[in-house]
Amino acid sequence: MPQPHSTTSHLTTFLIVSLFVLALFPSLFVSIFWAPYNSLANYLVPTPHPRKSVLCTSPNICTSAPIMSWAQKTITLPSRTRGSYLITDHIQKQVPEIKHYKTGLLHLFIQHTSCALSLNENWDQDVRADMSTALDRIVPEGQGLYRHDAEGSDDMPAHVKSALVGASVTVPITDGRLNVGTWQGVWFLEFRDAKHTRKVVATIQGERM
Amino acid sequence: MPQPHSTTSHLTTFLIVSLFVLALFPSLFVSIFWAPYNSLANYLVPTPHPRKSVLCTSPNICTSAPIMSWAQKTITLPSRTRGSYLITDHIQKQVPEIKHYKTGLLHLFIQHTSCALSLNENWDQDVRADMSTALDRIVPEGQGLYRHDAEGSDDMPAHVKSALVGASVTVPITDGRLNVGTWQGVWFLEFRDAKHTRKVVATIQGERM
Amino acid sequence: MPQPHSTTSHLTTFLIVSLFVLALFPSLFVSIFWAPYNSLANYLVPTPHPRKSVLCTSPNICTSAPIMSWAQKTITLPSRTRGSYLITDHIQKQVPEIKHYKTGLLHLFIQHTSCALSLNENWDQDVRADMSTALDRIVPEGQGLYRHDAEGSDDMPAHVKSALVGASVTVPITDGRLNVGTWQGVWFLEFRDAKHTRKVVATIQGERM
Repeated sequence: MPQPHSTTSHLTTFLIVSLFVLALFPSLFVSIFWAPYNSLANYLVPTPHPRKSVLCTSPNICTSAPIMSWAQKTITLPSRTRGSYLITDHIQKQVPEIKHYKTGLLHLFIQHTSCALSLNENWDQDVRADMSTALDRIVPEGQGLYRHDAEGSDDMPAHVKSALVGASVTVPITDGRLNVGTWQGVWFLEFRDAKHTRKVVATIQGERM
Repeated sequence: MPQPHSTTSHLTTFLIVSLFVLALFPSLFVSIFWAPYNSLANYLVPTPHPRKSVLCTSPNICTSAPIMSWAQKTITLPSRTRGSYLITDHIQKQVPEIKHYKTGLLHLFIQHTSCALSLNENWDQDVRADMSTALDRIVPEGQGLYRHDAEGSDDMPAHVKSALVGASVTVPITDGRLNVGTWQGVWFLEFRDAKHTRKVVATIQGERM
Repeated sequence: MPQPHSTTSHLTTFLIVSLFVLALFPSLFVSIFWAPYNSLANYLVPTPHPRKSVLCTSPNICTSAPIMSWAQKTITLPSRTRGSYLITDHIQKQVPEIKHYKTGLLHLFIQHTSCALSLNENWDQDVRADMSTALDRIVPEGQGLYRHDAEGSDDMPAHVKSALVGASVTVPITDGRLNVGTWQGVWFLEFRDAKHTRKVVATIQGERM
């Protein structure tokens, strides 16, 4: 008579302890439960980069969620006299975050109205010089042409050139680099004669690597 | 003999009930389990704004996920005769959603091809007047200059100015405000003589506050 | 005496087995637990589209998370001689992903510096012809006007036109379609006389349907 009771008691105790272990360490089950969504490698090898997340509405229905991310910073361009300048390298150095994006867009926005950003030829310096003189022909300086001349004869033409060329460029990012054409670079166009401090707000949006 | 059996039975009943409570209210464990990812304050004080989410691949591996968000709406600009107009205030009033974004971009897209959006000087009205006359010099009206003249002599030059200046601007948003320069504002340029109803699609993308 | 013990034993066994079932199949509880966040319909009817996800910081505090998504691809435009071309249909055919986005932006970026993308009138072919000749007047070819002439007299003017019109357009997407105006289309402007292969990087960002 004590024999079966004792057996039951031992078994019961074992089972109860097991259940407490299970109940009090739900992470064990959760880990097993989520295992199909995480490759085994993730458990063995620590990943240097944040891993792809899994968005779940219930544990049974999960969709892979890319890590969407924003980066924003203000950078200063080297001050320059009137002319066209290639700034691709400067941008890449000042915004190293580009390297961390698999897919995305880089938006560069110059916070001034008498200079501009553009994309153009990245090889022959003559193209930059020709661009400046061509814009001078399109928007000439001249006595009596403009009401707004208190800041100098180069000021109002600079505003017009800025409207024509534009204050911002948006460049696709692919696998950590600016996805521009072989002969294409980011240009900074200074339309004022004197050097000015020019600030650019760089905004990256995209999916991190 | 009944004594130990009775004891075991009471303990067993207690433990079984406890386990049922645990098993049937997993939220209790889950809450404890997730506690490190939520500050205590969040349990005590209701937050007015949606909190930062935590994306988890498994409960052990979580990454903070900013609340990415989109807002899109169509707004109507005040109808204007030919000229350049500062619309920064109008945009901020019509798109109050800007205030809710910590980091982002505002894209303004005018759904017409004989007017334009741009960014330029926000102080001296003369700049706006000079801009319009400068664009008139760059793209003159004139008999015999254009094939497309059925809609008036101001129509085809308006299309050309629209291509030069552009139908859209993208402006960075930082801490709930348009991150433009001190002297920089959003401009609406109307190139037709007569007033027209002009619609702008405003799209905000970014990380909410 | 054996009677109560036997009863307890059977009950205990039943309860222990039940608890093991519960403990070993936590998905059962999790499903019940998450049920309020999922409509009943989702359990009965399979959804063709991915459902809205729920981001949870703890099971009690969830925010609806739109499925943010990126799509990026490089497409090739039909090679054309100098002129202005309407490419709205070509873009929509080459980037069918537009249809999957509820709210978003399409960014088109041409990887070349002697052609451009723009938005303009989509109906009268004369507008396209007039645009090309108007740009020729604004940026004339000519002996001695440009230093950079090794690639032909049409090359440097093409670079200037490219800076004026721009290498990229960003178009809002609403409910799976490009949210352009009634008379508005995407234009490709080729500024070189000879046909060239022109590649466009199309980047969509937005909230999927």
